[in-house]
Amino acid sequence: MLYLVGLGLGDALDITVKGLQVVRKCSRVYLEAYTSMLTVGKDALEEFYGKEVVLADRELVEQEAERILEHAKDADVAFLVAGDPFGGLFVGSATTHSDLALRAVRAGIPYQVVHNASVITAVGCCGLQLYNFGETVSLVYWTDSWRPESFYDKILQNRAAGLHTLCLLDIKVKEQSLENLMRGKKVYEPPRFMSAAQAADQLLQIVRRRRNQGEEPAKHTRPVRRSDGGHAVRGRGQTGGRRPEDRHGDVGSNDLVRPRRASPLAGRHRQAPPPGGGHVAAARAR
Amino acid sequence: MLYLVGLGLGDALDITVKGLQVVRKCSRVYLEAYTSMLTVGKDALEEFYGKEVVLADRELVEQEAERILEHAKDADVAFLVAGDPFGGLFVGSATTHSDLALRAVRAGIPYQVVHNASVITAVGCCGLQLYNFGETVSLVYWTDSWRPESFYDKILQNRAAGLHTLCLLDIKVKEQSLENLMRGKKVYEPPRFMSAAQAADQLLQIVRRRRNQGEEPAKHTRPVRRSDGGHAVRGRGQTGGRRPEDRHGDVGSNDLVRPRRASPLAGRHRQAPPPGGGHVAAARAR
Repeated sequence: MLYLVGLGLGDALDITVKGLQVVRKCSRVYLEAYTSMLTVGKDALEEFYGKEVVLADRELVEQEAERILEHAKDADVAFLVAGDPFGGLFVGSATTHSDLALRAVRAGIPYQVVHNASVITAVGCCGLQLYNFGETVSLVYWTDSWRPESFYDKILQNRAAGLHTLCLLDIKVKEQSLENLMRGKKVYEPPRFMSAAQAADQLLQIVRRRRNQGEEPAKHTRPVRRSDGGHAVRGRGQTGGRRPEDRHGDVGSNDLVRPRRASPLAGRHRQAPPPGGGHVAAARAR
Repeated sequence: MLYLVGLGLGDALDITVKGLQVVRKCSRVYLEAYTSMLTVGKDALEEFYGKEVVLADRELVEQEAERILEHAKDADVAFLVAGDPFGGLFVGSATTHSDLALRAVRAGIPYQVVHNASVITAVGCCGLQLYNFGETVSLVYWTDSWRPESFYDKILQNRAAGLHTLCLLDIKVKEQSLENLMRGKKVYEPPRFMSAAQAADQLLQIVRRRRNQGEEPAKHTRPVRRSDGGHAVRGRGQTGGRRPEDRHGDVGSNDLVRPRRASPLAGRHRQAPPPGGGHVAAARAR
């Protein structure tokens, strides 16, 4: 049996009791380690589970899925994912997990999912009502020659319909440079996690460019960050990318861009802000 | 301290380890009992927690929130919610929980949220990619004189943008009839939970009415139901409302309406269907 187990958003204690039982009975435990992450590392999880955990990087998951599945044929194998197995979203991550489940089914291996919290629901903490979110978008790191703006059009589309937008921020783990990739060198770049400030900067660059074309962009940002020792996210009202903690951004930081349409609750309370429409929330890959 | 603790989607074991620690240390534990529910009742939770659990019905939560908060001033109080505290969605439910958090803050009582899975992410199990979902809609029980159709227009709007729609299905628990309400009689109607089939029937009625007006409606449904003893949801390809289990519908049943735009994966596999665009998913209030 293959178990896809969600770990939630915070630390080792955010696994469900059911998930923990699964992990403890499995003979192999893989930890997906490239599309999203917890506030604690592999060591803390191993200590809490009382079990060895194998880091499953992009290479292992995408190229050696058969190896993971081979074990699952005769024994119980757990594949741990930060957030929810299908909600720990990122460009391609949900696809990867769906793909693993699909391969399991094709190989006649039963699989079971143990769900957990994902940023898609946790973002509700900031006061925005979840049923008013439109399409989720991904912000990828721009390069000199590749500066996609399609996510911005989707934000505008959501906004026109009075809907919030959740933006997932890029994570680059175990990525090869183009040069090393072409030379076949398995040398990896240092991991990078897009901060709320970097996301806001990319947004602002688009806004500036488009303002010259006469478009009216979104104006205010509202960062939300994961609290220490827990995974509750809290809103703080200010313009994004201007405060030091937004400029460097921690792993758990998120970012909300508030458009002009104010809600009756906005401003009344800093901890539980606006259930209005058309807000933009950005969060890193979970 | 007030703790809003998500219980996840299945049974007692779906609480997180962190959530369980919170429950065990709290001097009072309330269980929100009217916007969504687990597959197990209060007794099973009490046995698992080793603690008394007070059912918090609509009356208690909406009218006596002060009483809950009063306790939270001097002691630790847990407020348990099926799904995620902010993702256990239903018409008004997220608002109720936000409102409780807001009242706590106004009264100077700190609160903390322990997140968990919600249908918003769990629906990803059926193979639809979560970032392709548009606005979530709610289907309410129609009455003789009140047959709102606005959710259908939102489905069409999402569909036009190539986005799936998650439909939350009505729950009526401890509702008074209009007559008893007007007479001030605290007599409550039996609880009702909209089934996938009832939802499909309301959708089909709209489709039929609108087809006469020349509109092209969505055609296929794909029910998804919670598996026994767990909360994994599995897709089954068929037209909704035609099979017996869809006609009566269990508490955990969900329903997907598949539009004409087929995905490359659709049909290839029954358990992990289409990552296409524009699907409609209906789930009951969690």
